[in-house]
Amino acid sequence: MSKKVAVVLSGCGVYDGAEIYEATLVQLRLDEAGVEFQCMAPNTEQMHVVNHLTGKDMPEKRNVMVEAGRLCRGKIIDMATANPNDYAAVIFPGGFGAAKNLCNFATAPNPNDFRVFAEPARFTKAMHAQKKPIGLICIAPVMAPALFGDGAICTIGNDDDPAANFIRASGGIHKACAVDGIVIDEANKVISTPAYMLATRISEASAGITKLVNEVIKRM
Amino acid sequence: MSKKVAVVLSGCGVYDGAEIYEATLVQLRLDEAGVEFQCMAPNTEQMHVVNHLTGKDMPEKRNVMVEAGRLCRGKIIDMATANPNDYAAVIFPGGFGAAKNLCNFATAPNPNDFRVFAEPARFTKAMHAQKKPIGLICIAPVMAPALFGDGAICTIGNDDDPAANFIRASGGIHKACAVDGIVIDEANKVISTPAYMLATRISEASAGITKLVNEVIKRM
Repeated sequence: MSKKVAVVLSGCGVYDGAEIYEATLVQLRLDEAGVEFQCMAPNTEQMHVVNHLTGKDMPEKRNVMVEAGRLCRGKIIDMATANPNDYAAVIFPGGFGAAKNLCNFATAPNPNDFRVFAEPARFTKAMHAQKKPIGLICIAPVMAPALFGDGAICTIGNDDDPAANFIRASGGIHKACAVDGIVIDEANKVISTPAYMLATRISEASAGITKLVNEVIKRM
Repeated sequence: MSKKVAVVLSGCGVYDGAEIYEATLVQLRLDEAGVEFQCMAPNTEQMHVVNHLTGKDMPEKRNVMVEAGRLCRGKIIDMATANPNDYAAVIFPGGFGAAKNLCNFATAPNPNDFRVFAEPARFTKAMHAQKKPIGLICIAPVMAPALFGDGAICTIGNDDDPAANFIRASGGIHKACAVDGIVIDEANKVISTPAYMLATRISEASAGITKLVNEVIKRM
């Protein structure tokens, strides 16, 4: 049985793609544990391109998968070609890309309008149906209720964050969590950690992500 | 006295910018050691933009500093504004960006034509003159002889690599080094490690970079 872990990227850079520290730390901890991983991303256009110095939109178009390739030295595949049977677990780093390029949380933070986009939804629901562990980092847990149904338990950090309200309004159960902690939904095999929803330093994000990766591996 | 470390980035992505794993690991290890750092990059156009899936040039223009901002959540400064007096050490992650956007090694791998570009040269020579420690990762050590003069000792990994020949032809002394090792030039306070000149896995690069960061800190 393959023990490869799918790492789902959403671009490259916190404001319009995957958070780089989080995505790198996931890969580091998996590799340190001797676990193979495969990065993948939707082959779609980014919602937008943000100048990370100014926070302003740039008049450009970039492809989610092509930019995410930067985050793994080009070793990325189109998520549409990924077969859930080939993977033992899946982990989603955060960054605004998760809320812009994997689902529409950034533009429709309302449970009625919310949807996870086609490929992340297909792959992750299939992994869940196969009872494989799923790691959600930073803002990525906002997808949990839509993907795993009512009663899905997760954290984005603070209980009074709008994203926590969204999780509750979507039928999920939000649990407050410290930056270096994790929340485990044993029934759904979903592990989450706040990372840069709360982190002020990379070492804080590292602490929670390391725990998350270890708990995901333990359940493979 | 400020103990801030300057981290010099050259874009975002191994083929046209800073190697993302290396740049993230430098920041992680500095932060874990409780050492403040400031990312900086030249405010110049990238030599080119590479599609990291295909390795081919893309018909685009991107700015080195703007893209490098992705690698540090936007907390970057223009290297032209950086005062060496404010920093206790400087570390250069690798990636082709170091050989394309910080110097012209990628296009002029010949000591006679070689030059380190204005801002990296100004800042780093001043740091050297102030006897502050300097960390060079991956391909970045090709700049050592031009920056620190004849007899500068460094490594890019294998002794028979063209970059090692270049270092010798430039008046430097190349020392072979394993992926998880470092080479220390005590006279120049220059520490180098091969990282992705040799690494096949992120954990290998991490081992050498962790040692390099620790040795740089020790000499601050």
